[in-house]
Amino acid sequence: MRILITSGGTTENIDQVRGITNFATGSLGKLIAERFLMANYEVILLAGREAVLPAPHPNLTIQTISDVSDLLAATAKWVPQADVFIHSMAVSDYTPVYMTDFETVAASSDLHEFLVKQNTEDKISSQADYQVMFLKKTPKIISTIKKLKPNIVLFGFKLLVDVSKEQLIAVARSALTQNQADYVLANDLAEITETRHHGLLVSQGAVIAADTKLEIADLIVRKSEETYDKYHTRHHR
Amino acid sequence: MRILITSGGTTENIDQVRGITNFATGSLGKLIAERFLMANYEVILLAGREAVLPAPHPNLTIQTISDVSDLLAATAKWVPQADVFIHSMAVSDYTPVYMTDFETVAASSDLHEFLVKQNTEDKISSQADYQVMFLKKTPKIISTIKKLKPNIVLFGFKLLVDVSKEQLIAVARSALTQNQADYVLANDLAEITETRHHGLLVSQGAVIAADTKLEIADLIVRKSEETYDKYHTRHHR
Repeated sequence: MRILITSGGTTENIDQVRGITNFATGSLGKLIAERFLMANYEVILLAGREAVLPAPHPNLTIQTISDVSDLLAATAKWVPQADVFIHSMAVSDYTPVYMTDFETVAASSDLHEFLVKQNTEDKISSQADYQVMFLKKTPKIISTIKKLKPNIVLFGFKLLVDVSKEQLIAVARSALTQNQADYVLANDLAEITETRHHGLLVSQGAVIAADTKLEIADLIVRKSEETYDKYHTRHHR
Repeated sequence: MRILITSGGTTENIDQVRGITNFATGSLGKLIAERFLMANYEVILLAGREAVLPAPHPNLTIQTISDVSDLLAATAKWVPQADVFIHSMAVSDYTPVYMTDFETVAASSDLHEFLVKQNTEDKISSQADYQVMFLKKTPKIISTIKKLKPNIVLFGFKLLVDVSKEQLIAVARSALTQNQADYVLANDLAEITETRHHGLLVSQGAVIAADTKLEIADLIVRKSEETYDKYHTRHHR
């Protein structure tokens, strides 16, 4: 099996000196990569600029990802060659379109004009007391994966903040269907500490709980193997 | 002399999972700290979360800074105890006030209402195609330094992108006056590479050019010593 893993966070540039970053250390993605390497699989890791990285390994390829457009190009390249895709990266939901001072926006008769503008300056001026930034949704990469390769084993991730177990499972189930994922690892920022990482691996039929990053990583290795076998047994019938 | 240095960049949180970051490696601030340590001075380094750091040293204190409000508290604490302040950090000009979907903003009859709102959710929802973020100017920390300690030797930094030498100097001179700085190191992102870092050290009377980070650092050490002596000779007359 060839395993494609994303880790860390993306940063969408506002201008040449500023950007919107998704906070993510990449430590779970790093550990998942290491456990697959230990089990003798080939791993391709698409890692955010600040992500912690595994030590070099003959079966490991690392590609650095800055923004969503990088990630889009990298998945288009690697997904067709992969058997398992584990999308643990914190991807920017929105990317800046245009930023200007508040008074200009307040004086406009139709705010839609700002959705088609672009900043041409290298560094946006910082004189006004208030500024307004217009942002647009980035493409949802995970929803395209099964179209690129129908029999890839697909793991999505959902990070919520301070919700109930029932909400976590409901959000994960909805992501499963929407993205045709095989599994969604649902976790809650309020339940992640240095030593603990509570997560629920949700599939159509089951919910399996894990309590540390290592348990999560090993669960993902095991489920990847099982589901890969299932897909390939079916395939050869 | 006790030297206070800021380095790296600040990040202003949008919510618990996202923030606006100023890109800065902290490598110039690190080198300046190292050169002062080599000259046997005591150094306090206020470093952004992602900044590269000097090796531990008995005369070095490092404090990590996340956002502008951290930096404000740290300078209020350290400036009165310092003889030289070198403000090389890339500080966020704006901090998020409120973020919501475009349609809500477009339907408003007075956009000022959004300048006094606050997001209460831990993770802002990401359903809408377009979102709007309102931001307000952060306090200009450098302009408060000479009020906290009039005879501190003050170095400001100005990073511009792709401007002429004349513009660089003009912007630096205006920053000198506005912040009562002794020196402003003006540099241009377009003239910074792995091996080269062109900078102009601008004071009221002179402009000195440097071509590498090391030249900039050594120039700052020398000018700190000269100006400290000048202030303290005057003081004892």
